[in-house]
This record gives sequence, C-alpha cells and structure tokens, in this order.
Amino acid sequence: MLNFNFYNPTEIFFGENQIAEITKAIPKNAKVIVVYGGGSIKKNGIYDQVSQALRDFTWGEFAGIEPNPTYQTCMKAVAKIKQEGFDYILAVGGGSVIDGSKFIAAAANFSGEPWDILSKGAEISSALPIGVVLTLPATGSESNSFSVVSNSETHDKLPFASIEVQPKFAVLDPQVMKTLPQRQLTNGVVDAFVHTMEQYLTYSVDAKVQDRFAEGLLMTLMEEGPKLVSESVDYKVRANVMWSATMALNGLIGAGVPQDWATHMIGHEITAVYGLDHAQTLAIILPRMMAEQKETKRDKLLQYAERVLGLDIADEDSAIATAIELTEQFFHSVNMKTRLADYDIGEDAVNKITEQLERHGMTALGEHQAVTLEKSRNIIRASI
Amino acid sequence: MLNFNFYNPTEIFFGENQIAEITKAIPKNAKVIVVYGGGSIKKNGIYDQVSQALRDFTWGEFAGIEPNPTYQTCMKAVAKIKQEGFDYILAVGGGSVIDGSKFIAAAANFSGEPWDILSKGAEISSALPIGVVLTLPATGSESNSFSVVSNSETHDKLPFASIEVQPKFAVLDPQVMKTLPQRQLTNGVVDAFVHTMEQYLTYSVDAKVQDRFAEGLLMTLMEEGPKLVSESVDYKVRANVMWSATMALNGLIGAGVPQDWATHMIGHEITAVYGLDHAQTLAIILPRMMAEQKETKRDKLLQYAERVLGLDIADEDSAIATAIELTEQFFHSVNMKTRLADYDIGEDAVNKITEQLERHGMTALGEHQAVTLEKSRNIIRASI
Repeated sequence: MLNFNFYNPTEIFFGENQIAEITKAIPKNAKVIVVYGGGSIKKNGIYDQVSQALRDFTWGEFAGIEPNPTYQTCMKAVAKIKQEGFDYILAVGGGSVIDGSKFIAAAANFSGEPWDILSKGAEISSALPIGVVLTLPATGSESNSFSVVSNSETHDKLPFASIEVQPKFAVLDPQVMKTLPQRQLTNGVVDAFVHTMEQYLTYSVDAKVQDRFAEGLLMTLMEEGPKLVSESVDYKVRANVMWSATMALNGLIGAGVPQDWATHMIGHEITAVYGLDHAQTLAIILPRMMAEQKETKRDKLLQYAERVLGLDIADEDSAIATAIELTEQFFHSVNMKTRLADYDIGEDAVNKITEQLERHGMTALGEHQAVTLEKSRNIIRASI
Repeated sequence: MLNFNFYNPTEIFFGENQIAEITKAIPKNAKVIVVYGGGSIKKNGIYDQVSQALRDFTWGEFAGIEPNPTYQTCMKAVAKIKQEGFDYILAVGGGSVIDGSKFIAAAANFSGEPWDILSKGAEISSALPIGVVLTLPATGSESNSFSVVSNSETHDKLPFASIEVQPKFAVLDPQVMKTLPQRQLTNGVVDAFVHTMEQYLTYSVDAKVQDRFAEGLLMTLMEEGPKLVSESVDYKVRANVMWSATMALNGLIGAGVPQDWATHMIGHEITAVYGLDHAQTLAIILPRMMAEQKETKRDKLLQYAERVLGLDIADEDSAIATAIELTEQFFHSVNMKTRLADYDIGEDAVNKITEQLERHGMTALGEHQAVTLEKSRNIIRASI
C-alpha cells in the first residue's frame, strides 16, 4: 500500500425525505444562493422541496448551469453573488451544477483573475461554503474536492481541486432519480463504473481493502445498473446505485493505490470537441484502453476477470479478452453506446483528439505514464 | 437500505514515517498534552518520534491510561489539564488510550459532574480537540466518536458517543506494529473482525455496497490475520490489517444497515467481572451467538458462508454449521482462545454475567432485540 492522506469532511444525509435536513445543515444566518441547471428541478418537485426547507432563510437563485459547466456562465453567478452579498451556495443538481458551484465558490472569494484557477492552477485560500442536494448520481462531486469547468470560447475543459470547495454536506435522496431521463441514469452508472476502474485497474500494491471495496462497487453497478434502466425499477436499486456513485469518487477507494485516469483525459477532449456526454466518451475509450494497456494492466485485468466477473483465468489471454468484452457488454446492457461511429464521428477524430491531447500536454497518461500520444492515437482509432 | 447520516471528519495520515505529520495537523499555538498508557511507547521509539515532532510546541504529558481505561484515572488527567491549561490532547496509543482521551476531552469542558456523561448520557456541548498517533490497530476509535470507560469501583463499563470527541486527525503508521506483543496483535485482528460482523451479520436490507465492503474486510482479516501473528510478517500485511481495523468501525460499513452488538454487550460484562481482554471475550461469545441466533440471522449466515468463506450452501444447515466452525478456527489461527474454560472460568460465570446484564438493562439485545436474558444465559453457558 502507498502512503496516503484521506480526509472527507462532507456530511451525508442519505435516504427518503432527507431534503428537509438542509434546514439543520445550513447556518441560520446564511444568505443562500440556490444554484441549479436547466430547470428540471422545477418540474420534478425538488425545487419545491428546497424552497419549503429554505422558507426561514434569506435566499435567491441562479439558474442555467449547463452540462459541462462553462467558465462564462459561472462568472455570471459570481457577479450576482458579489452584487447581492450571498455567502452560502446550495447546489441543487448533478455533477455539472456541483462542479460549477465549486468554481463559483472559489472565484467569488478569489482576489486575482479567476481563470487562473483553471489555467494556471492558482492556489485557493478560501471559498464560499457549499451544500448539495444531489439530483443525479454519477460524478461523486457531492463529496469530493474536484471540479471540471469548460471554456466555451477556447474549447478547453480544465480541472481544479481544493479542500476549500468540498461540500459541507450532501443530501442523497434516491427518490429524485424517479423522474430522471434514461440517458442521465445510463450516464450515471457508466460514470461511476469508470471512476472505479480508473482507481482499480492499474497495478497491484497489495492494498487488499481498497481492491475489495472497488470490486464491491463494480459488482454492485453491474448488478443494479441494468435494473435501473428497466421499467420496474424500485427504491432499493436506486439507493444502491446512488451510494455506489458517491463511494466511487469520494477519495476512499483511491487512497493508497496508483491511479490511471487516462480514459478520462481522452474522454474530456472528445467532449470538448464533439460535445458528447462525459460518460458516453468513457464507455467508448475504456474498452480500447483496457486492450491497449493489456500488458501493463495484466495482473489487475486477471483479478478483475476472476473476482468481479467470475471468469476462469487459467487461459490468461482468453480471460482478459472476455473481461474486456463483458465490460463493453455491460455498457450495452445499460443502453450505452461504445463506438465513436455510433455518434457519427469518423476518422477525423484521430487527428483532432490527438492534437487536443498534445496541446494540453497529455503526452504520457496513465498509472505508468505509458500512454504516449501514439498510443492515445491508436486507442482513438480503435474506438471508431 | 435504511436512511442514514454519515459524517467522518477525521483526517487520516497513513503510512511509513507519517508521525512527523502531526506538526502540520496541530495548531501552532496549541498547548498539547500527550496522553499515553503504560510506557511501551518509550521503549519502541514512538515517544521519541512524537517528542521530535512536537519540539516547537508547548507540551506536557499524562501517562498511565490503563487497558479498559478507568474513570478514576481519566479524572486525574482532567485535573492536570485544568491546572496547567492544556488545550489540545494528543492521544498516543491504542483504543484504550484513545477512548480515555475522549472522555478526558469531554470532561475537561463539562460544567456538571463528568460521571453523568457515562451514567446518564449527559449531553456534551464541547470538548478539547484530540489528535491521535495510533500504536495498536483494533478498535477503530481513532476515527470515530465512540468511547467506553470503566469505573474501577463499581465494575461498570459504560459507553458514550459525541461528534465533539471525534479525533481531528489520526496517524496510522503500520511500522508501529513491529514491536507489539503477539497478544495485542491477536486482539486487534479479532476486535476488527467482530466489529465488522456486528454490522454485517444481521438481516438483509439489500444494502449491497455496505455488504460487499464488510465482506471485503472480513476476507482481508482472514487472509492477513494469520500472517500477522507469524514470524516473518512484512509491511504489507501490517498495513492491510491496520487499514481494515480503522474501516471496520469508522461508521461506513454500518451506515444504512441494521446493527447487532449483542456479542459486545455480553463481552463487556465478562471483561468487567473477570478482567479478560475485550477481544478475548468477543472470540468466546461470537461463535455461540451465531449458533443461538441461527434462525434470525439465517440469510446473512448463508451469504457469509458463500461469499466470505466460499462454501457451497446447497445444504443450508450444514453450510451454517461449517461457517460457525470456520469462524472459530479463524480465531484459533491467530492464536486466540474461544472458551471461558481456557481462562479458568467455569459455571459460576452463567449467573454472574447474566446478573450484570440484568443490572445494566441488557435484557433484549441484538438487531431484533431477540437476545433475551434467557438467551444470553444460554450463550454464556455454551461458551464455557
């Protein structure tokens, strides 16, 4: 096991009717700005529940955080916060709303040029406190310190991280998933699955707890994911997927182990250029990444084949090939496509995405920095 | 899955040479009291590492917290703290030192009679901050809000819990286990194993993540435990056991599931009356509890048999019997005894322990409150 620090101070309120708990979790004298997305929360009743819980608070709202939240939109929220003196952000939404809120929280307190937070990794010394009402389980952003924000003008999609922007609390009520479109449920399952794989499918450092926890999440998502996108889904399935998605990226399974994230880096560029959903890009790249990195990941691929998929691994190469195939089949089982061509993207992606990777310095990706630009090019070509 | 709140704000510093990190984790202007036990930390170099890290702090010390820390000893520390104005506790030790430090931290700020915290569940509104250097992995006390303190005069052993006494940070350096006596290593493995079982072996609420995480801990402890008590143990084994013990009782695997704790309640009384180590009592009671509660725990016993022990469960009763037998064998494999008679305790325990349980109101224990006094009596009799 590698040395690690693990610190996750987000308080979780999990279960039915937990939205009312925000009343206790937000300081009484806070001036709250509710940040949300395209307005679906007004149709599914979540906005009403939040309004009801905030009835004794002073509060306002900022709507319109887009999927892949943009720097431009976030800065409009920052202007409103500064003008009206809000001092607490309540993010009501999925990963995009939460990621956007994290940037807003940091930028609102930042004395320099906020774009530097993303472009230069400028240090954040304080941020507005954030609470979360999660409406879409997927990214884990509700209980971690990471954020990814896009620049709509330059097509950059850049990450930042700071403990200052980690949510103080997150409400996870599986009932909010009832009204989600199937595409978002599918995205959530795939996103959580690939988050887990990025922290698991590397090389062994004999970290048995982390391995078994990751395997537990993968098995749960493989069992529950297909049920979630079926007609007769029940509360238990939603609850299991929601908790898996949070646990997949709250720092726990990645503590003390090597991490990969090459699939994410290539996926981010596909989203930036072609506008695919984040999870859609992951489902395309991961199977090809597994195949391309078969040798560097051999031991963990076999462990995955045996423990998660229950395969006989006597014939190693055959077991690995089957494991990759079953992974792609799992994506299909939750109605996720796994080829660029499924989105009418062809050969031109090979150069375009490789150039983007080069421009962002992504020339040695993965846990061994073994995914060179040439290998990324091969992976993208194989993904068409 | 049941509704739950999960909040664990303890920062973990895990790995070799992490004791130096306390320099960053304790506020610079703190006046630190180092609380420890019988002085083994002076022989194994940990006291020296802590002294070195604290060289720029104002600090003092309180030694002599005993195994099963007593109210009487803790109150001596409280007197010293009040007299000399310490405002930060650094607990250097195992579960007893940490549990004692939690009571000291609460009592130092308590305006009433501190015994009421234990005897009447008096509410704690503040406590001194606590940091931990863990020297013995076992109880999980380093990252939870629980404490158990004994009264040496009345033979009461009573728990309390408050987020106010949860450690701000905990240093987990597996190297500290190098010099531990085998008895303490054995105790640690068994303690962590039974903590996990108390939160796992109940009835299913279809909480798949929690179940798989618990199973991961049980499997890890069963694999690594016997290695830990052998001659040629290496760092990896120590690290896996240490992290398992923390994860076994930091609130995570118990969030959203029913919990048992009947084995602990009976075990506490055995320690109070006969002075056995906490883990020794658990290893005696758990196999008998499993047998006695075979019907109420049937589904989970079968799940344990199949997933953790890899048994064929076609013949259910036979699988359950084998699972109980293998659990007891596991205790033996880490050199832990599993009978009262192994400690020269005989028939008189049946009445004595049952009377203690009655005196403390422990008349309906377990996840179904199905362990009546009569059943406890049967369990104790079967444990001889």
